[in-house]
Amino acid sequence: MSALLTSPDRPGDASVESPAPAAGETPLSVVQTATLFDRRPLRTEGGDELGPVTVAYQTHGTLNAAKDNAVFVCHALTGDAHLAGRLSPDDRKPGWWDGFVGPGALSPDTQSAADQQDAGPGLDTDRHFVICANVLGGCSGTTGPGSLRPGTDGPPSNRWGLEFPFVTLGDIVEVHAELVREVFGIERLKAVIGGSLGGMQALEWAVRFPDRVAASIAIASAASLGAQGIGFNAVGRRAILTDPHFRGGEYHAAVERGEPGPDAGLALARMLAHITYLSEANIARKFGRRLQRPSREPGAGPDGFQHDISKEVQFQIESYLDYQGRRFTQRFDANSLLYLTRAMDHFDLARGRGSLSEALGRATARFLILSYTTDWLFPTAGSRDVVRALLAAGGDVTFAELDSPYGHDAFLIEEELPRLGRIVNAFLG
Amino acid sequence: MSALLTSPDRPGDASVESPAPAAGETPLSVVQTATLFDRRPLRTEGGDELGPVTVAYQTHGTLNAAKDNAVFVCHALTGDAHLAGRLSPDDRKPGWWDGFVGPGALSPDTQSAADQQDAGPGLDTDRHFVICANVLGGCSGTTGPGSLRPGTDGPPSNRWGLEFPFVTLGDIVEVHAELVREVFGIERLKAVIGGSLGGMQALEWAVRFPDRVAASIAIASAASLGAQGIGFNAVGRRAILTDPHFRGGEYHAAVERGEPGPDAGLALARMLAHITYLSEANIARKFGRRLQRPSREPGAGPDGFQHDISKEVQFQIESYLDYQGRRFTQRFDANSLLYLTRAMDHFDLARGRGSLSEALGRATARFLILSYTTDWLFPTAGSRDVVRALLAAGGDVTFAELDSPYGHDAFLIEEELPRLGRIVNAFLG
Repeated sequence: MSALLTSPDRPGDASVESPAPAAGETPLSVVQTATLFDRRPLRTEGGDELGPVTVAYQTHGTLNAAKDNAVFVCHALTGDAHLAGRLSPDDRKPGWWDGFVGPGALSPDTQSAADQQDAGPGLDTDRHFVICANVLGGCSGTTGPGSLRPGTDGPPSNRWGLEFPFVTLGDIVEVHAELVREVFGIERLKAVIGGSLGGMQALEWAVRFPDRVAASIAIASAASLGAQGIGFNAVGRRAILTDPHFRGGEYHAAVERGEPGPDAGLALARMLAHITYLSEANIARKFGRRLQRPSREPGAGPDGFQHDISKEVQFQIESYLDYQGRRFTQRFDANSLLYLTRAMDHFDLARGRGSLSEALGRATARFLILSYTTDWLFPTAGSRDVVRALLAAGGDVTFAELDSPYGHDAFLIEEELPRLGRIVNAFLG
Repeated sequence: MSALLTSPDRPGDASVESPAPAAGETPLSVVQTATLFDRRPLRTEGGDELGPVTVAYQTHGTLNAAKDNAVFVCHALTGDAHLAGRLSPDDRKPGWWDGFVGPGALSPDTQSAADQQDAGPGLDTDRHFVICANVLGGCSGTTGPGSLRPGTDGPPSNRWGLEFPFVTLGDIVEVHAELVREVFGIERLKAVIGGSLGGMQALEWAVRFPDRVAASIAIASAASLGAQGIGFNAVGRRAILTDPHFRGGEYHAAVERGEPGPDAGLALARMLAHITYLSEANIARKFGRRLQRPSREPGAGPDGFQHDISKEVQFQIESYLDYQGRRFTQRFDANSLLYLTRAMDHFDLARGRGSLSEALGRATARFLILSYTTDWLFPTAGSRDVVRALLAAGGDVTFAELDSPYGHDAFLIEEELPRLGRIVNAFLG
């Protein structure tokens, strides 16, 4: 990961600001870390105890004196704390939701209605204090299966690996709630927002901590994953578990010695997942049936296509997926993908809370539920189930199905962010 | 494969019958083989020469004297020649389209309209002579990458492996056309019918041999595969190619020595493919989020689910996919899956024939195009493209989108066969 991890920072109740840029410099964003659960351990939903827990987080904007302008952003399956901005001047890319979070929205008082339509990002850091933290079980600064295991220091491995406790979305939200209260002294969030697995967390936040969440925004999400989604996750996990370099999750020591890790399995899992993030119509338009390169090499037939069966990449879509898979192995840990897809599979907002409506009835938050027309991994039907349950519980809910060609990934696509920003801005008021 | 392969049988122009059952016995079906391209080799579309070619086939019913009652059935990606009936008294299952092919339809003259609605199988073997043959590149009796390579007889392998020529659907159809003419002396088929990859072959038959096909029936099919389908195939191939036991396709000798083959990769490819064959709604109904077995084993949490991350099968859908994957490795060859998915990827009915409409304009057949509402691998849009191209070419086409919960697999599901049978019966007249 490219995330810059600074030393743990515990300002307690003090308000936290992004570092001020030096004159003439573009402001850089930082990823900080906090150590939590060091006095008493986290007790997970699975019954394990874990502590201390390191959490990597990033903030944008300024927490006001009343501490009532904080918005917590929940990242999706393979996201991280690096929400916006660049971590260094030569950082290749800004944070994953850079186009959605930042300063610059004009005050509603000083602009025309037409201007408002185009005004600013979804989360205006001139008004909001935005926090984003890496999830428990992740691999980008927060404690996870790749972390050093306390009390161990020798071979074969001093990393948790598969000995790391089972993690649920409830556990992930507990850790973030601790961060919000312990580090920032924030009692009540103005909003929690996220897409996909982040949207599941936004729902869990509102139900688990009814008094601490004023608004919950769940995008391209659901109250639980369906059988098809579990099936895709299972195939991805299988690819990792059967990779001979996976070594039962104990690959860290081998990788440190320069031996291969389970990159082939991890890449395969990502290739598959990536297909499910895109709409069929969009990849048909983007890649269609175009060949990667009509080949004149030996083995190429008269039509220019490659007749060597072992040549994996022939069509452009194959090249694209291959690239996505390889790139993913440079930034993500195989064990984390196992833990986080299992957390996703097992998430069920209603479990242990009666019905979905009874679960959502616990919340006091206003809800904004958004889905995308071409998202077939988290289809609109799943969002509608949440909306219906909220209405049955007498909840305050706004719902929109957004027409988009981009499938499940739409909430991350730059072109979609202005519209998403207008909707979220209007909802937050 | 359980297919019973008898010695090559070349009755030439003689009419061929299914063997008559002994008194009191259930008639058994047989898979026969023919040797083709022994005088001159097959020249593949890729420019290779291959011969002789063994073809495994099965027939049901009796070829009439005019030889105008033959229907050729094209099987799908992993199907085989074993179309209907049991190969032995203890055969666990009948052929793959047993409920669609068989004797028993009453004459339309002797029954009421209401009776006709429920009458008989789709392909009535009292009237039709039905032929089904395993595809070139397959692994169920027809020459493929697992076949013995002529002129080789020593280690490391005397099987083709990845040295087998690249195969197209055009090549597959050429071989079957040779079978139909050389073995049975049939000049013109009453119909060619198939689903999925079989439907692609049915279209290719009608375009490649305009004078030899009177009717073409393509079910749950398309004139080419889209980017999403190519992507899924690519992920499945990747699983095989990266399996350490794949050995560059040279695993046959190792397997014969009792060492493992690329079963893990092959099973993974099947698990993924199987998800794409089912509709989301149907697996939601069939499996939902039910756990395989609320566990009280060590590692199980208070909610009964298994917290051991390395335990692959937790939900019922995972158990089902695991079973499908393992079962598949017992009947299918990894190299064949590589060749046949590549044939599917590269199939494009229009290529080299101007437009799709110009391609289909070559055909003289009547067409029946059928799709299923919940088929998302070969969605109705692909069938509509074929229908539109046929209409533009002045073709004779009947089209129906059938409402079904079963997704792409619908044409194989027993419950769907009576309706499919009525439609095909009515079309064939």
